[in-house]
Amino acid sequence: MDFQYFMPVKIVCGRDCVQKNAQLWAGMGKKCLIVTGKSSAKNGSLADVCGALSANGQAWQIYDDIPQNPTVACVREGGRLARSFGADFIAAIGGGSPMDAAKAIAMLARQEDGGDIFAYKSTGDVLPMVHIPTTAGTGSEVTPYAILTNDEKQTKTSISAPAFFPKIAFLDGKYMRCLPQKTTVYTAIDAMSHAMEGMLSVRAGALSDALAKAALSVLHKETGALAAGRYTNEDRDALLYAATLAGMVIANTGTSPVHSMGYSLTYFHGAPHGRANGLLLPEFFAVCEEKSPARAKEILSAAGYASHKELAAALAPLLGEREAISRDTLRTYAKKASVNKNIKNCSVFFGEEDLFRVLVRSVGKAE
Amino acid sequence: MDFQYFMPVKIVCGRDCVQKNAQLWAGMGKKCLIVTGKSSAKNGSLADVCGALSANGQAWQIYDDIPQNPTVACVREGGRLARSFGADFIAAIGGGSPMDAAKAIAMLARQEDGGDIFAYKSTGDVLPMVHIPTTAGTGSEVTPYAILTNDEKQTKTSISAPAFFPKIAFLDGKYMRCLPQKTTVYTAIDAMSHAMEGMLSVRAGALSDALAKAALSVLHKETGALAAGRYTNEDRDALLYAATLAGMVIANTGTSPVHSMGYSLTYFHGAPHGRANGLLLPEFFAVCEEKSPARAKEILSAAGYASHKELAAALAPLLGEREAISRDTLRTYAKKASVNKNIKNCSVFFGEEDLFRVLVRSVGKAE
Repeated sequence: MDFQYFMPVKIVCGRDCVQKNAQLWAGMGKKCLIVTGKSSAKNGSLADVCGALSANGQAWQIYDDIPQNPTVACVREGGRLARSFGADFIAAIGGGSPMDAAKAIAMLARQEDGGDIFAYKSTGDVLPMVHIPTTAGTGSEVTPYAILTNDEKQTKTSISAPAFFPKIAFLDGKYMRCLPQKTTVYTAIDAMSHAMEGMLSVRAGALSDALAKAALSVLHKETGALAAGRYTNEDRDALLYAATLAGMVIANTGTSPVHSMGYSLTYFHGAPHGRANGLLLPEFFAVCEEKSPARAKEILSAAGYASHKELAAALAPLLGEREAISRDTLRTYAKKASVNKNIKNCSVFFGEEDLFRVLVRSVGKAE
Repeated sequence: MDFQYFMPVKIVCGRDCVQKNAQLWAGMGKKCLIVTGKSSAKNGSLADVCGALSANGQAWQIYDDIPQNPTVACVREGGRLARSFGADFIAAIGGGSPMDAAKAIAMLARQEDGGDIFAYKSTGDVLPMVHIPTTAGTGSEVTPYAILTNDEKQTKTSISAPAFFPKIAFLDGKYMRCLPQKTTVYTAIDAMSHAMEGMLSVRAGALSDALAKAALSVLHKETGALAAGRYTNEDRDALLYAATLAGMVIANTGTSPVHSMGYSLTYFHGAPHGRANGLLLPEFFAVCEEKSPARAKEILSAAGYASHKELAAALAPLLGEREAISRDTLRTYAKKASVNKNIKNCSVFFGEEDLFRVLVRSVGKAE
C-alpha cells in the first residue's frame, strides 16, 4: 500500500457559504484582486464575493478579462494588475479558466521576471488564493495545477506547484443555476474523466481510489439529470461535490493520456475541455481493457459501466456531432501526445500507435 | 450539502517510507526532538527515524518518557527539552499518547507561560511536526487534537488547534509487527469508533461520510484477522490505513458522547481508550437506533452490522471481562460526560439519563 496524499485546501461547502463565512475572508488580507471571466460574473458569485469583502472593509479590484483557455498574455496582465493594486490575495471565480489563470497570476504577482512562465520554478512565493468554482468539472479549486494555452508548443501546458493550492474553496451549487446545459454536461464529463484517469495513474493509491469511487458513484446518480438537462438544487450540489472529489484525486495522481490527446482537440478544434475528454475516454478504455483488464473493469464498474462500450453508449448522446479529423492530422496529435508527461503517469503504457488508434476511432474521418 | 473540510497533513504511506523520503525530513529543519514512549522505540521506528535524520546530517535528541495517557507534567518537561535543545521540529513516534503529547510539547516549546495549558489559545505558534504512528487507532497523525490527562478535572481533555496538524504523517504497517494482540484490537476498535461517531456528528458531511464509510469497509474486512489475532503485512497496512481515514473523519467532525463517557473508564479504571469506546459503543447505538433510526442503521450497516445487537455480539469477544461498576459511580460519570463538549457535537441528543443508561448497560454492576 504505497501512496502519497496531500490536499491542504480548506473546503467550505453549502448554500450561501461565501457570505456566511466573512471571517474566513477577513483572514486573507486587506486587498483582493478578483479574477474572473466576463460571463462568470453573471451568476451572483461576484456580487456575493464583493458583499463579503465589503462587510469586512476589504478593498478589491476586478480583473474579468479571462478568456476560455487562458493565455500567457492574460495572466501576465493579471500579474501586473495584482502588483500595481498591491493585492494581498486573489479571489478566483468561475470555471477552470479563471481558476487556473488566477494561480498563474498569483505566481506572477510575486515572481514575474519576463522569462518563460512554463519554466518557472514552483517556489512558495505565490499570493494566497480563495477559489469559487461556478462549474462542476475542473476541480481546480483543490489542485496544485494551472493549465494555460501554450502557443509556442501549440498545446495546453500544465504548471504544478504546491503553492498553487488555494487556501479556501467555497462550494455553492447555486452559482450553477444559469449554467448552459452543454457546459454542465461537458464539465461533468471532465469530472468523471478525472476520477477515472486518476485511478489509472502510477500514483493512484487506496485513498485516491476511495475518493475517485465516491466521485464516480455521485456522478452516476446524476446521469439522468445530465441526459435530461433538468437539475434540482441537489443535483447541482452533487455535481459540484463530485467535481471537487475528482479534483482531490488528480491533485494526488495527475491525469492520463486522455488529457494529453484532448489538448489537441481543444487547441486546434476548439473542443471544450470536458467534451474533448469525453470523446476520447471510451476508446482509451478499450485499450486499457486489453492491456490491464482487471483494473479497467474495476474503474468502469465504479463509474457504473460494464465495459467501454457501455461507457461509449452513455456518453455519445451528450457529446454532439463528432469532429472528423484526417488520419494525417491525428498522427501529428498522437506524436504530440506521446511526449506529454501524462504518458509516463499512466499505469497502462500508451505508445504513439495506441494514441493514434484512440484518436482515429474517436474522432477520425472515414477515409 | 453543508460541510467544511480541512486536513493539510501530507500523508506518505508505504513500506520503509521513513527512510525512503529523506528529502522530506531535510525540509523540516536542522534539529529534531524525537518524542516517543519507552516501548514505542522497540519496533524499529526509532532506528529508521534516526537513520533518516543521520543521512541528512540533522541533529536529534530523544525524549522517550511519554507514558500512556500523557500528563501535563510530561509535556511540560518535553517543552523544556525542546527549548533547551533548540529544536526546529518534532518527530512523534508511537500510538496516541506520544503523538498527542508531541503536539502539546510543540506548543509549549513556543508558548510556555506556566498557566493552565488547557486554556492556551490555539495560535499558530507551534513547532512543526512529523508523526509516525505505530498503532492503528488514534488517527492523531491527521488530526488537530491533543488529548491529555487532566488531573484537576479528573478526566482526559482535548486541546484543539489547526497548528496541531502535523506537516507529514509517515504510515508504515511494519511498525505494528510486534504490537500485542490486545493493543491491535483495542486500537482497531478505536478507529471504528471514530468513523462511526464521526458520522453522528453535527459537523458530518458528504466528504467525511465518504471517508468514514471507506474506513469502516476496510475495518470490516479485517474482522477475521482481529478475532484470530493473526495478521499478514497487508492486514497491518489495511488497519493503519483505516485508522488514518477515521482520523481524517474526526479531524473534521470531532467525536461523540462515546468518548465523553469513555474518558471516565480510562481515568478511573485504567481501561485502554479503544477498549473503553468498544465497551460503550453498542449501547450508545441502541439509543441512536431509538432516536435517529435511519442514520443509526446507515452507520451500523456501513460497519457491516444490521443492528446494535450484531455490533455487540461482534465486539464482546474482543473486549475481555467487563468492569462491573456501581450505579452510584456511573451516575457521577454520566454527570461528568453530560457537560463534555462532545455532547453538543452529536446529532443525536444524549442527556444525562441517556448517558447513564448506556453506562449501566455497558459496564454496570448487577445489583
